[in-house]
Amino acid sequence: MAVVSQEASTIVIIGATGDLTRRLLFPAIYRLYALSEWPQTQIIGYAVEDWTQEQFLAHIEQNLKQFEHNYDETVWKTLASRISYISGDLTAASLTQLKSKITPSALFYLALPPQLFGDAAEGLGHAGLATETQGWRRLVVEKPFGWDFDSAKALRERIHQYWNEDQVYRIDHFLGKETTQNLLVFRFANRFLEPVWNSNHVRQVQITVGETLGVEGRWRYYDQAGALRDMIQNHLMQLFTLTALDAPSTWDAEVLREHKVEVLRAVRPILPNQVDDFACRGQYNAGSIGGQNVAGYLEEPGIPQDSRTDTFAAVKLYVDNWRWHGTPFYLRSGKRLAARYSEIAIELRDVPPGLFGKSLSNWLIFRMWPDQCIDVVAWAKAPGLQLDTRQIILATPYEKVDEPDYTAYEQLLMEALKGDRAYFLRFDEVEESWRILTPVLQAWSEGQPEPYAAGSQGPAGQERLMIPGHSWRTIGLN
Amino acid sequence: MAVVSQEASTIVIIGATGDLTRRLLFPAIYRLYALSEWPQTQIIGYAVEDWTQEQFLAHIEQNLKQFEHNYDETVWKTLASRISYISGDLTAASLTQLKSKITPSALFYLALPPQLFGDAAEGLGHAGLATETQGWRRLVVEKPFGWDFDSAKALRERIHQYWNEDQVYRIDHFLGKETTQNLLVFRFANRFLEPVWNSNHVRQVQITVGETLGVEGRWRYYDQAGALRDMIQNHLMQLFTLTALDAPSTWDAEVLREHKVEVLRAVRPILPNQVDDFACRGQYNAGSIGGQNVAGYLEEPGIPQDSRTDTFAAVKLYVDNWRWHGTPFYLRSGKRLAARYSEIAIELRDVPPGLFGKSLSNWLIFRMWPDQCIDVVAWAKAPGLQLDTRQIILATPYEKVDEPDYTAYEQLLMEALKGDRAYFLRFDEVEESWRILTPVLQAWSEGQPEPYAAGSQGPAGQERLMIPGHSWRTIGLN
Repeated sequence: MAVVSQEASTIVIIGATGDLTRRLLFPAIYRLYALSEWPQTQIIGYAVEDWTQEQFLAHIEQNLKQFEHNYDETVWKTLASRISYISGDLTAASLTQLKSKITPSALFYLALPPQLFGDAAEGLGHAGLATETQGWRRLVVEKPFGWDFDSAKALRERIHQYWNEDQVYRIDHFLGKETTQNLLVFRFANRFLEPVWNSNHVRQVQITVGETLGVEGRWRYYDQAGALRDMIQNHLMQLFTLTALDAPSTWDAEVLREHKVEVLRAVRPILPNQVDDFACRGQYNAGSIGGQNVAGYLEEPGIPQDSRTDTFAAVKLYVDNWRWHGTPFYLRSGKRLAARYSEIAIELRDVPPGLFGKSLSNWLIFRMWPDQCIDVVAWAKAPGLQLDTRQIILATPYEKVDEPDYTAYEQLLMEALKGDRAYFLRFDEVEESWRILTPVLQAWSEGQPEPYAAGSQGPAGQERLMIPGHSWRTIGLN
Repeated sequence: MAVVSQEASTIVIIGATGDLTRRLLFPAIYRLYALSEWPQTQIIGYAVEDWTQEQFLAHIEQNLKQFEHNYDETVWKTLASRISYISGDLTAASLTQLKSKITPSALFYLALPPQLFGDAAEGLGHAGLATETQGWRRLVVEKPFGWDFDSAKALRERIHQYWNEDQVYRIDHFLGKETTQNLLVFRFANRFLEPVWNSNHVRQVQITVGETLGVEGRWRYYDQAGALRDMIQNHLMQLFTLTALDAPSTWDAEVLREHKVEVLRAVRPILPNQVDDFACRGQYNAGSIGGQNVAGYLEEPGIPQDSRTDTFAAVKLYVDNWRWHGTPFYLRSGKRLAARYSEIAIELRDVPPGLFGKSLSNWLIFRMWPDQCIDVVAWAKAPGLQLDTRQIILATPYEKVDEPDYTAYEQLLMEALKGDRAYFLRFDEVEESWRILTPVLQAWSEGQPEPYAAGSQGPAGQERLMIPGHSWRTIGLN
């Protein structure tokens, strides 16, 4: 074997003919390569399809041209020379053929349906590919990690037969997003925030990730998962922990992840008989979005007529630690809502009423879509001879988010190659998140979600989560 | 005497033929009258000039047309029917003629040169006009109230022979400005400010009121006064106390003024041998502003060739109370500077360097000119794969200040008629302000101010006031 520089490594994409690979992984790889941020790395596509190398390259090239605005033939040619394709299944016998093709350091990316994560991890391990001899071996696992508390533990056990915890990179692409990382920077680079960032000053936190899209061909997965598993358990829980965590002393992966897990550990359990007070589910009916009529969930191709899958989920969480005791965190996400709109909205408590004789509170809005913007809703003097107030907004200039999802993968692939696990989930994060939500999932295995019209703000029942004086913010820019 | 409604009152302007009356008081009175905010009030102009009523009305009308954009003949006609003119001097014998002309409630506005305030107050008192029998009698005194600590006390004694403290309305028109009152509203209507509004979080405060104008015909007064007396002792000290005061429980005049005085009482004395470390004075030379050449101060008409008058003054103040111990307040004001520009700028201390490895601080900017704007200079993530920072500004929308000075008089005249003294200075405010600045005035009675070029940022020597790590902000929008 030729001498390999320190940076030489291999990315093996298991499931390389799938949707994730073409839409997200290769655009991300291309960008990293084009930006020269890329160490000396080769890429191996691996999948069951009996494709030739040429077929695979043509497939990738065609998709790159579609998804990457800055596609450049020359860049692609050089990149393509580092890509190879191997056909095989998830058995150790088949995976063994990778052994002679990879560098001592290799990253295995499981771009597979969730139910195959265990098989793949086991197969790779059994084939001896997890063993670190002269380099590192890493396993990138997509979400969802498990299906509930017990299945997540079982999946971990299967993986841990061959892989150590610090070889496992559980990906949540929200952690690779500019806007998410900006939340961390903004919180800790600005002194005026920390003194109010606690329940003495914060009345409520609302985290909303609203989509206008429906199931869009993912019905096989989505109808099994639902909004709580697909969005809340991972993406929104990540936004929640990043909002709530105590300041880490450094960006060290273990420090950061420990702080995140501490938040999750402090979340008050939702008891089975409280689920209706702490959680709400909905399922969209036919409706209209932006003037377009859209079908209801049950009318979507492939969806069973009796599906009780939640396409909208909302939960209320209390964090029983010193910082947050008494401040509710409201999380919600849904499909076919009025707008594609994501924000973390923090309302401060009222100022004392002595001076103005009325209720005055601030909102700090950290908006992630459609624009990346920070708004402080504040009060100033209304013009005129009276000492009255008017609302003003201190805002950053409008910045339309122009961040295709694959840039998050670009970020995370680079971190994984560098071996920085700060933006990957430790198992106990996943475990705690399932601990919090499994009682809700269990309750929702019966009964029906509340219907809501496509294009609306979601089910009316979400308001029952709010404590008196709180109400959900409008989804969408006013 | 006819029956007089509760609101019936008289405003007597002593010095009614002067500049203040025509430029500020009558435009203010006209506006109040036009806006119907005006109680049933008559106005008497009083001055030594032997004018007829018709002459006086013509004089006022002509000036109104010049200064008031919304001049309306009909409004003026009705207002004019309530205005009369009486000629006389400041002796009791002459002032006695007012007795039969005024309502039981009357406000005497001393629109006179400062050296006549004592004579006028005494004359009015001696004539029996200060005595409250069936109504109220109030005395509005312009700035400066005294010339230094001792002369202010002496003036007070003269006034207090006939007038009680709560009859005396010491005016500082900055307190009638929208932008100044907005400072009070903004500070106390927004919960996110109070937790950082102290020396634990604030590194420094800079208050700048910069002018491009020169002496503009006011040389007789200005060359005696200088920037420290003309601006710092009153206007900037007011901005300073409103920035530094503890939250009052109500807007009650005594509560508010007590809180302001508490700040001034806590200001560390400037010892005679420390004046150069705590204060800086300058005098402008010839220079250029906005492409126009302008003369130096000593070349202005009327100014003595050996004048040592300060046209720029800066001071550093420490407030030795719990809230502000350790935070310097830097105040400066000057004529013929680079820009007409006013702001209160508050820098927070750095965030701990552990996460970003560099010095990151926020500025809160409360700008009063040229736009009324609140800026928070903050840090967000720089786009890209690194967790680096970039500066962002959270700002209110640009609002050009369109507030002629007379609107402050409109506000304050109304308050004086209502008997609300919240925006008028109590004697101890004036006294404490002189206490703080008199050692500087004494030191400056010798030596020479540092020259600075007209159109510049002021004298270089102002930097010696700054403690290490601080430096003056640029005067003018960048």
